[in-house]
Order: sequence, then C-alpha cells, then structure tokens
Amino acid sequence: MTGPRLSRRSALGLLGAAGAAGAVGVAGGFAAGAAQDGAPSGTDLAVPFHGKHQAGIATTVQQHLYFASFDMTSTADREDLRALLADWTDAAARMTTGREVSPEGAVGGGPYKPPDDTGEALDLAANALTITFGFGPTLFDGRFGLAGRRPKELVELPSFAFDLLEDRFSGGDLCIQACANDPQVAVHAIRNLSRIAFGRAQVRWTQLGYGRTSTTSKAQSTPRNLFGFKDGTANIFSDDTSDLAASVWTDGSDQSWMAGGTYLVARKIQMLIESWDRVRLEEQEAIIGRDKGQGAPLSGGTEFSEPDFDVVSTKAGGPAIPETAHVRLAHPDRNGGARLLRRGYNYVEGNNDLGQLNAGLFFLAFSRSPLQFITIQRSLAGDALNEYIRHIGSALFAVPGGVRPGGSVGDGLFT
Amino acid sequence: MTGPRLSRRSALGLLGAAGAAGAVGVAGGFAAGAAQDGAPSGTDLAVPFHGKHQAGIATTVQQHLYFASFDMTSTADREDLRALLADWTDAAARMTTGREVSPEGAVGGGPYKPPDDTGEALDLAANALTITFGFGPTLFDGRFGLAGRRPKELVELPSFAFDLLEDRFSGGDLCIQACANDPQVAVHAIRNLSRIAFGRAQVRWTQLGYGRTSTTSKAQSTPRNLFGFKDGTANIFSDDTSDLAASVWTDGSDQSWMAGGTYLVARKIQMLIESWDRVRLEEQEAIIGRDKGQGAPLSGGTEFSEPDFDVVSTKAGGPAIPETAHVRLAHPDRNGGARLLRRGYNYVEGNNDLGQLNAGLFFLAFSRSPLQFITIQRSLAGDALNEYIRHIGSALFAVPGGVRPGGSVGDGLFT
Repeated sequence: MTGPRLSRRSALGLLGAAGAAGAVGVAGGFAAGAAQDGAPSGTDLAVPFHGKHQAGIATTVQQHLYFASFDMTSTADREDLRALLADWTDAAARMTTGREVSPEGAVGGGPYKPPDDTGEALDLAANALTITFGFGPTLFDGRFGLAGRRPKELVELPSFAFDLLEDRFSGGDLCIQACANDPQVAVHAIRNLSRIAFGRAQVRWTQLGYGRTSTTSKAQSTPRNLFGFKDGTANIFSDDTSDLAASVWTDGSDQSWMAGGTYLVARKIQMLIESWDRVRLEEQEAIIGRDKGQGAPLSGGTEFSEPDFDVVSTKAGGPAIPETAHVRLAHPDRNGGARLLRRGYNYVEGNNDLGQLNAGLFFLAFSRSPLQFITIQRSLAGDALNEYIRHIGSALFAVPGGVRPGGSVGDGLFT
Repeated sequence: MTGPRLSRRSALGLLGAAGAAGAVGVAGGFAAGAAQDGAPSGTDLAVPFHGKHQAGIATTVQQHLYFASFDMTSTADREDLRALLADWTDAAARMTTGREVSPEGAVGGGPYKPPDDTGEALDLAANALTITFGFGPTLFDGRFGLAGRRPKELVELPSFAFDLLEDRFSGGDLCIQACANDPQVAVHAIRNLSRIAFGRAQVRWTQLGYGRTSTTSKAQSTPRNLFGFKDGTANIFSDDTSDLAASVWTDGSDQSWMAGGTYLVARKIQMLIESWDRVRLEEQEAIIGRDKGQGAPLSGGTEFSEPDFDVVSTKAGGPAIPETAHVRLAHPDRNGGARLLRRGYNYVEGNNDLGQLNAGLFFLAFSRSPLQFITIQRSLAGDALNEYIRHIGSALFAVPGGVRPGGSVGDGLFT
C-alpha cells in the first residue's frame, strides 16, 4: 500500500480551518445550515445530533434530502430492534459531525474486510447533515412486544379525496430523513445506515429531493415549487418557540417516550406538469390564491401579508381569493387553527412514455398530532389544485424526542 | 392583481449587487463556476453562451446535471428542425444569463395565456448554467434531408462486452446537456426547452445527476464516485488548450459544421452497490488500481503521480497494479494515446424490491472522435470492475461548434 491512509476526519483536517469547522457544533442547536436566496451555504456547518428534540425538524431547511422507509426483516425479538436503534444512533451521531460511520471508517481496520464506511463522503464536511428517525404504526403490531407502547394517534391515515396511493411509495416500520447541503452527504448517510441494518431491516422505499420548497427560518427566502409558485410563505418558523410548542412538539402525556417528539406525515405528490404549464396565468393564480411573481395573496399586500378572504374582486365581483383557492382552504382559520411545520422538497424522476415529467413535491410535515394534517387535507378536498396533482405515496411516523448523550433514539420504548 | 409583478430579471435586480452579477459574463469564457472541495459555489456566475465552442464542454464542471435526449416528432420538413434549433438557441442564450426563457417570461404578457416561462427559477441567479446541444446519428437518416451532412464517424456505437443496454435509456435524435450549480436551474432549463419543442420534438429519456465525478480544472478537488473512489484524477483539464486541441475539438475537415465541435458519448452505468460494499478493501483497491484514501496509484506516490505499470508488488510478487486493474486498462499508454474529456455525475434513483439501490454513474465524455471511447471501452473488456457495473444506457451525439451572436446552434447544417 502506498502513501498515508486518510480517514474522513484526517482528510478534513488537511483542509485546515475551514474543514475543521465541520466537527464544530453550532451554538443554539437549530441554527445551522441557513441558506439564503438558494445559495447552498452551510457546507462546513455541523448541526448537533443530541438535544431535547431530534435535529432535522426545527433545523433550518437544508438544500437536499434523502429519505428512506424501512421494514423490519428480523422478527426474532425486540432486542434486534433495540440493537438496531443503538447502532443507528452511534453511526448518525458520528456522521452528523462529518466523520465516517465508524472509527475504522472507509480505509481503516486493515485490508482484509469490507470497509465499514462506503467512502463516497470522505472529502466532504458535515454540510449541516441532520438524521431524523421515526416509527410507523406497523412497528407496534406485536412483532416486537410494543403494542402497549403505541401512541393512540399512530394509526394509518384515512383515505382522502383524490388519493391514488401506491404501496411502493407508502408505509414502513421505520423511517430515516437525511437532510444536508450536499446530496452526496445525505445519500451516504442513508446508504451506510441501510448497511448497518442488514439482516434486521430492509429499505422499503426511498425518496431523493432537491431544492427545498419550504423555509423554516425568516433568514431564508421562500423557494418555489415546480408549479413556479413560492411555497412555504406561511410555514412555522424555527425561531418561533411558541408556535413550535403549540403546533409541533408532543408532551408525552400519551406515551412518555414521545415527550419532545412529533408526528411526521410524508406524502409523495405527483404534479401534472404539462397540464399545469398550459393553464393561463390568471387561472394559475386563482387556483393558488396568490400572485406568481412575489407570492402576495390576491386580496392585496405583499408576500407576508395575511390573506383577507372577505376582499371582493372589483373585476370579477366574487371574492378576490376564490372559494376553491389553495391558500383559503389550507389556512388555519378554515381548519380550527391547525398548522404544520413543513419541510418539502421537489423531486424529478425522469419521464413517462409520452415524454411527460415524473416530478412533483415530496411533502414532509411535522405536527403534534396527525389530526392537524387530517383536518387540512380534508379541507383540501375542494381545492382547485387537485386537478393538477396526485397523491401517490403516504406514510405516517411517530418521531421520538431527542437523544441524550449516551442514549439511543427511541430508547424510551424499552424502559 | 396585487403588487408589482416581478420578472426573473427584475427579481434578480432586487437582490442588489450579488444578484446582478448573475447577468455578468466571466472573462475567459471557461472559467466560471469553479468549485473547490465540494462547495457548491458559483451561484451568481454566468458562463457565456456564445463562443468558438459550445459551453458545458471545457467549462469547469458544475455540481448538478439534467440531461435530456429528444426524438423529432415532426417530419414535415427540415424547416421544422431549423426553427426548433433557432428557438432553442434564443431561449438558451437568455437562460444562461439568469433570465427567463422569453421577454414575456413567467408573469408577463398579460393574464390570458399560459406563461412563457414556468417560473420555478424566478428568484435564482444563473448558477453557472450551461446548455449544450448535440445531434444523434438518427437525425441524419433522411427525414430532414441531412443524410449528406452526417459526419462519417457519427454511427451507432458497436456492442461491447458486458453491455446490457435498454432502449429507454439509449439513443435519441437530439440531446441537451444542462449543467448548473443549482439543480432547480438545470431542470428548469430542460423543462422549458421541452415546452418549446412541443409538436416538433419530444423527450425520449432524461437523466438527473448530482455530485460530479470528474474535475476539469486543477482548481477543483477530485470528487468521488459511489464506489467511494476518487474519479477523474487523470481527466483532461480545461486550461490545457493543447490537450483539448489534441483530444477534444474537431476541425471540420469531414463536415464543416463540426468545426470547433466534438463528439459526446453518454453511458448510464449502473453500479451494483451492495455487492461492491461487501468487497474487502484490498480487493477494491486492486480492482481500481489506486488506493481508496487519497487515490494514489498502487505503484506508489500521491494522487497525481503517474502510475508505473512495471512496479512489482513486494507482497504479492506480481505487478503492484494488477493486469485487470481499471487504471491500467483505461490508461492512454494502453490505448494508443486515446484520452477523453469526462464530465460524469452520480445518480441515485430509489431501490428495487430487494431494497437494493438503483444508483450509479452517468458517464459523459467528449472526444474529437468516437474511436477514442471505442478503443478504451474495448480495452475495458478485461476490467475486473465489470463484475460490479452494468452499462444500461448508451448514446452518441455529434456536438456542433459554438454559436456566434445572431446565429443558431448547428446552423451550419443548413447552409
């Protein structure tokens, strides 16, 4: 063998101060990875893995996503699950600091075994990587003796109008959300966690996303979805702790292991791009309820003005924001105050035989109860947008609270 | 309608100096978008569209790719093709400066027609976007009266050992390569060029790629492919004009419209990730012929040391770089001096029913003759790496020379 062997850590060290910053936590816990105006910044930032809540929820949204749903393949006993979660936790805590998946890493441990780490992130810093774990309803079906630990609200979502769900994009015993400012870092994390799961859990489905469609910080500009509209203007902001407490974090009064946790709804929403692209501008804006250029509600003002649903259009005579407009039906006032912390990403996956794009929105939303999503989604049955979208994947996960140093994600399940 | 309407150009103006730089060309022509150590820089850079050669070939490799192959659907006459290329040229020249696809744009032109621009890149700067056009062998089959304009070497590639090509990832009358430092900018470009083609050409296949696997500038660090190895160490550099002249640019002696052009080989190479990840480190390194940590040849030295194929391994007794090593079989000394300008990207496209990754390398290589690729690929029939990869897509395109201001890409075809 020639030359010195580099671990991911030592490779970073060679970069000097900028690289070394990859292993430095950011004070405040949830402030890392802020990106403005689409600029992929935060390359060298590391988001703390441990804390009261899991990272990747109130963390400022990163530029890239790789999401995986897993099914347990081992049904031996719940120690297999417990050990898997402990192994995942150790690896995740390391990778979020920009280190390799284990101390032996990609090129350590001698030449006579497969490397622990697959190596494709060797020269890359933490890139604000967050790794967030969740548990699906099926994990509590009795295979692991956890039926008594199931939160009452963790049941399959009901059917909604216009659902066209496919099993290959839906469900799962476990999920991992990896977000980072470099796609290779996010993919590397899921790939190596999948390897660790070998013989215990297997990937059920995955989703690559880019170009966030939400903002969770006032420091971020509002990005656009593939219909060309700003998306996420009215999202919950990560620095608004009272909104987070009211709408996102669970208190553990049902199941104590859910204290500091939340629920995650994942929906794969295909967009009928070519149909939408033939809709005239005024109709597009009436469907959304906002103007396309700056994202202001059609009732007037600027992007962050509150929509006024009583304003009458002088031109049309009816309401300036139509009764079927997305912004009206999704608004908290229409839904008993229900709000969601959204973390969506655009996806593009080639074309069908007609040359049409397979593309859309991978919708991720956190809330203290699944009922918040259910309420809003039922209201959206009347949404004019339904002509141009198809919900083709769906999953619900309970996201346990944060991990304390020395602990494992979800270890409260086993106490 | 409420508030002022923003065009992409005026939206950029609001960002001030940083945004305004999006419309400023970079002196030198091929220096834009340089990124170091995986940091996605170059957000605000614009790469000149016009020049002796098309941009996106010797241009420093950007972080993201969206590639599309098209088939002509119109066979009316060659004026349809000529008009399509003129329309594509106008739109591409605009978008590469960070502007919308047309002067009317996403929110201009009045409310009673579909917008010209789909809008999802409205707030994004040029991001070093390059748009590169190519012509497949089938374009010269007689439908457009161009049989006499076909370069002699523009014929389907021969079959190679281990080819498992699929029609849905192969061929095409035309291609467009869009590279940018933001994936939304690259996807937006192809989407809007596809719309312009409506009724004349239709997407045949597309490919999203991220995390370049090549470097074309000494200012860039060498990135890693999904096998965890540095890829592109021995690539042709964009600042080495004599290498480019010798190996990349065609002179037009066969067809005058190819002066300043090149040939593009695109190969979709699936990687058998799970199999590779079970190979021990020493064997992985013997297959590649380099060490995994820093990428030095197994004959000694550092990453950029020339491999010495005569060095004998003191441990194994045989050559330090095995006879079947990838680096040996791909080396110019083995292939009559043949070299390629590579511009590859990693791709990840979900999982199969066994939970295995659909992932690999989208290989793009430019050369002054397809024979350079054919020679090297034939040599690789003995490559130990073949156990872990599958070539599943293939296409060859003739890439015409650069566009002069006022002209259209490929307009030499019609003179």
